[in-house]
Amino acid sequence: MILKDYVHGGDIYQNRVTLDFSANVNPYGTPEPVKAAIRAAADKVDRYPDPYCLPLREALAARHGVLKEEVLCGNGAAELIFSFVSALKPGAALLPVPSFAEYETALLAQNVDPTFYPLERANGFRVTDRILDAIKEDTDALLLCSPNNPTGQSVDPDLLLRILDRCRETGTWLFLDECFVDLCDEDKAFSLIGSLRDGDRALILRAFTKTYGMAGVRLGYAVSKNRKLLRKMSETTQPWNVSTVAQAAGLAALDCTDWAQRTRALFATEKPYLIRSLSALGVSVLPGDANYLLLSGVPTLYEELLRRGILVRDCANYRGLETGDVRIAVRMHEENAALIAAITEVLHG
Amino acid sequence: MILKDYVHGGDIYQNRVTLDFSANVNPYGTPEPVKAAIRAAADKVDRYPDPYCLPLREALAARHGVLKEEVLCGNGAAELIFSFVSALKPGAALLPVPSFAEYETALLAQNVDPTFYPLERANGFRVTDRILDAIKEDTDALLLCSPNNPTGQSVDPDLLLRILDRCRETGTWLFLDECFVDLCDEDKAFSLIGSLRDGDRALILRAFTKTYGMAGVRLGYAVSKNRKLLRKMSETTQPWNVSTVAQAAGLAALDCTDWAQRTRALFATEKPYLIRSLSALGVSVLPGDANYLLLSGVPTLYEELLRRGILVRDCANYRGLETGDVRIAVRMHEENAALIAAITEVLHG
Repeated sequence: MILKDYVHGGDIYQNRVTLDFSANVNPYGTPEPVKAAIRAAADKVDRYPDPYCLPLREALAARHGVLKEEVLCGNGAAELIFSFVSALKPGAALLPVPSFAEYETALLAQNVDPTFYPLERANGFRVTDRILDAIKEDTDALLLCSPNNPTGQSVDPDLLLRILDRCRETGTWLFLDECFVDLCDEDKAFSLIGSLRDGDRALILRAFTKTYGMAGVRLGYAVSKNRKLLRKMSETTQPWNVSTVAQAAGLAALDCTDWAQRTRALFATEKPYLIRSLSALGVSVLPGDANYLLLSGVPTLYEELLRRGILVRDCANYRGLETGDVRIAVRMHEENAALIAAITEVLHG
Repeated sequence: MILKDYVHGGDIYQNRVTLDFSANVNPYGTPEPVKAAIRAAADKVDRYPDPYCLPLREALAARHGVLKEEVLCGNGAAELIFSFVSALKPGAALLPVPSFAEYETALLAQNVDPTFYPLERANGFRVTDRILDAIKEDTDALLLCSPNNPTGQSVDPDLLLRILDRCRETGTWLFLDECFVDLCDEDKAFSLIGSLRDGDRALILRAFTKTYGMAGVRLGYAVSKNRKLLRKMSETTQPWNVSTVAQAAGLAALDCTDWAQRTRALFATEKPYLIRSLSALGVSVLPGDANYLLLSGVPTLYEELLRRGILVRDCANYRGLETGDVRIAVRMHEENAALIAAITEVLHG
């Protein structure tokens, strides 16, 4: 929990919100089998959770074609950001911005002052091969997010492979956050997991949060072919960080094999609808590969929407973004239509 | 989760266990209202948890007569051990042993080499006023557990107050783990919370785990009159470390006002029964103030009981303990009687 000012999306607890577009979670919510697993877990919570997360890790290993020793589970993906940084305490970390704020928070908590790598607005905040030169011999770690949050931009698969190669050359740890890959457009849903080699100084971060509507349960995992790293990370956290409820929910989620597919099908029509409607309204919208979109150019948008009970993610406090930059999640059609109606009212009404 | 060899109690996942005496949890299990709250939470886990844990912290603040800003919630009490150490990175830490192993693990994860303060077996591992001299000007932190785990020994309230005073003199951070206070014998259930003064370099750790059968949900909290410390601790962890499920379960637990009382009443008869029966069998047993007992002197006890499907906590790997030291939880009478029968068989049959 936090005691500082609130900075993230999903702050439905502090505001009077009827529609929440601020959190990038699945608009279909939680699959019924996952809810059933949570309810069933109520009868076994008097026991400590399995600190090995064994059945869950076995299922994840099978899913990704890796060994169970190459999978580490966490209390949400966010915890694994902190344990990665805490385990490595990199002296010099390269951080493309704008990106997810917790990378910087985790680095600062370990007194690591990151080197920021500014992504350019004029270029749609895309990562280009210019980044290869920024990865130097003395770069201990690169924290990259693809598709990036809040821009929705994926790194091109070829470039990702070249980044991995460059990190091998320089001995740089690559932290690649793929938390939104499952909800990405089909042709953009590339994962680097299949390209990892034994011992690679690389970690891929994944989450159940967004895909399976499990943000309130907390479950994420890391895949790495560097077992020493995973062991070290596990030593920076308590043994029981993944609750019994989360382990049960995760196993149930992995059986919901068509959930992501079904959600992507929704986005395949709703994302173009939002982009089209926003563009028609004259709102600048960055076409993203994931289940959210970055809008810009309307400085009062966040406040005006909140007055109407609609919460979007104000991105003004992201490094490299500015007032008027807001992120919206793609949701069900009626919700998206309500958002468009509200924005129409704000701009023209 | 962990990737190393298993060291803690409750390892029901790796063994064929019919009776588990290894985890110090409430033998009455989880209160029905807590289970109901967990089941109900299944319908709202698609949202992120409240990163402020606001209603829960307000309820805890009211319970302890402190401000909500003086309460920090964690993913189980264990997480707060790690965030305390991570936030302070004490150069010199004093650690009475034997004690809960996670203090040392958390210190080592931050490259802190603790100074061990050996508690004496001949003295029943009690903390005496000898400890006051061990707290020196250059002692950055003292990590103390009362009642201690696995010995069950409480620090005398007068001595606790003198320790707090001594820490004020030396500028030492006092980390006091009171996770087992709620299940302590009535006359030993002293908490230092009421004695804290504004700005004190002291933190009191509490848990829902043991009292309310919530080990699988993960919920603990810290109380401190040093808000700077709590803020710093919150910055070393992700904002959403306390799940929606845990927050709901915790609120429900706080309404179960007679649960701890009812459990203590059980222990009031069962603990003397166990002590009497074990002594009659010639097993050395340390009378503890909490819901568990430390036995010693039978080197094969752990293995022999495990062969009979009974898991106890082998304490041989605790610093300052040895083979034959095992910890047993106090459980329901039939279970305790079954344990005594099994030990009788091991020793005499």
